[in-house]
Amino acid sequence: MLRIGPPTPGSAEPVERADAARNRALLLDAAQQLVREHGVAGLTMDALAKRAGVGKGTVFRRFGNRTGLMLALLDHSEQKFQAAFMFGPGPMGPDASPVERLIAFGRTRLLDIEVEGDLHRAAEENGGRFGDGPYSLHRAHVVLLLREAGVAGELPLVADTLLATLSAALITHQLAVSGYTRAQIGDNWEWLVRRVVSGAAHVE
Amino acid sequence: MLRIGPPTPGSAEPVERADAARNRALLLDAAQQLVREHGVAGLTMDALAKRAGVGKGTVFRRFGNRTGLMLALLDHSEQKFQAAFMFGPGPMGPDASPVERLIAFGRTRLLDIEVEGDLHRAAEENGGRFGDGPYSLHRAHVVLLLREAGVAGELPLVADTLLATLSAALITHQLAVSGYTRAQIGDNWEWLVRRVVSGAAHVE
Repeated sequence: MLRIGPPTPGSAEPVERADAARNRALLLDAAQQLVREHGVAGLTMDALAKRAGVGKGTVFRRFGNRTGLMLALLDHSEQKFQAAFMFGPGPMGPDASPVERLIAFGRTRLLDIEVEGDLHRAAEENGGRFGDGPYSLHRAHVVLLLREAGVAGELPLVADTLLATLSAALITHQLAVSGYTRAQIGDNWEWLVRRVVSGAAHVE
Repeated sequence: MLRIGPPTPGSAEPVERADAARNRALLLDAAQQLVREHGVAGLTMDALAKRAGVGKGTVFRRFGNRTGLMLALLDHSEQKFQAAFMFGPGPMGPDASPVERLIAFGRTRLLDIEVEGDLHRAAEENGGRFGDGPYSLHRAHVVLLLREAGVAGELPLVADTLLATLSAALITHQLAVSGYTRAQIGDNWEWLVRRVVSGAAHVE
């Protein structure tokens, strides 16, 4: 475990906790890389230990089992996504226009789903898709952007439609069965966003 | 069992089959009425036998158990819906304009989901929502109407978005948790359809 400087009295525990958090994040970044390269099937406790250069025991201690690792990875990926759309640079973050941000929100989500689709789909199927924390946050964010773009519809319902278009179950079906590419699905997303905001300049 | 005229040689079996089909349809109409009045919880084998004025044994012989009855009802309701959008009178059927038909398709589906939401949700959760027969037919129908309305987007993907807006899981959440009325959700559907077709007159 990497220590930054020697522990000083009373500070040992916080330093250890910060180390643990950083090590955890490094492990999860390695796990994300593995999934990007080999799909979800390539993510095993063994492969992760090898990739991260740690003992297998460390990986088990940290995540319990493969399901625990998957959940941690999903959470890690979700946190990165949230940080990007709330505080990140353009086109997802606050510097860009609301329409650019909506478009980037969808295209980034599509990339996550293409790479980690099985993870996201499993999370959706674990009931409560619409009630859970991430969904509420995504919906609030999309409502905010629609309002900033001047859309006059019933915004939470419009946001539900946009987010339904990005559901992992639907996207993985479009990729795997309907035979669309991520670029085509992304272009459709952009088309849809532009249609939804198209009446925004008019009073309805 | 009602018989139309005496059986003639060689025709007894077909007459019996037609009777059986009609009796089955009458039972399912009674089941649908029960669900409309008392929700899915009110649909029991007992209640159905009483409502239809037949013995409980007849209901069990016909559907096996309550799950069998639910599946048969869902199928019955789906067949009526399909007949309405393919061959029915306006605004769902071929006499109306494509935009009117799209709007009526959604509003009718919303009514079905409000009444039989638990049935439809269970059907969606039984895997293969996007691969199953009804979904493919709905998608083909929506694609056809979008094309007739002159929409220039990637129509199967646009249809996926419109149908995702009508998923039973989403609609029941909007009704039960978000607190929207069916009328509000229907108005949002109409708004969405009009936005999607709004650019149709222009070459994109």
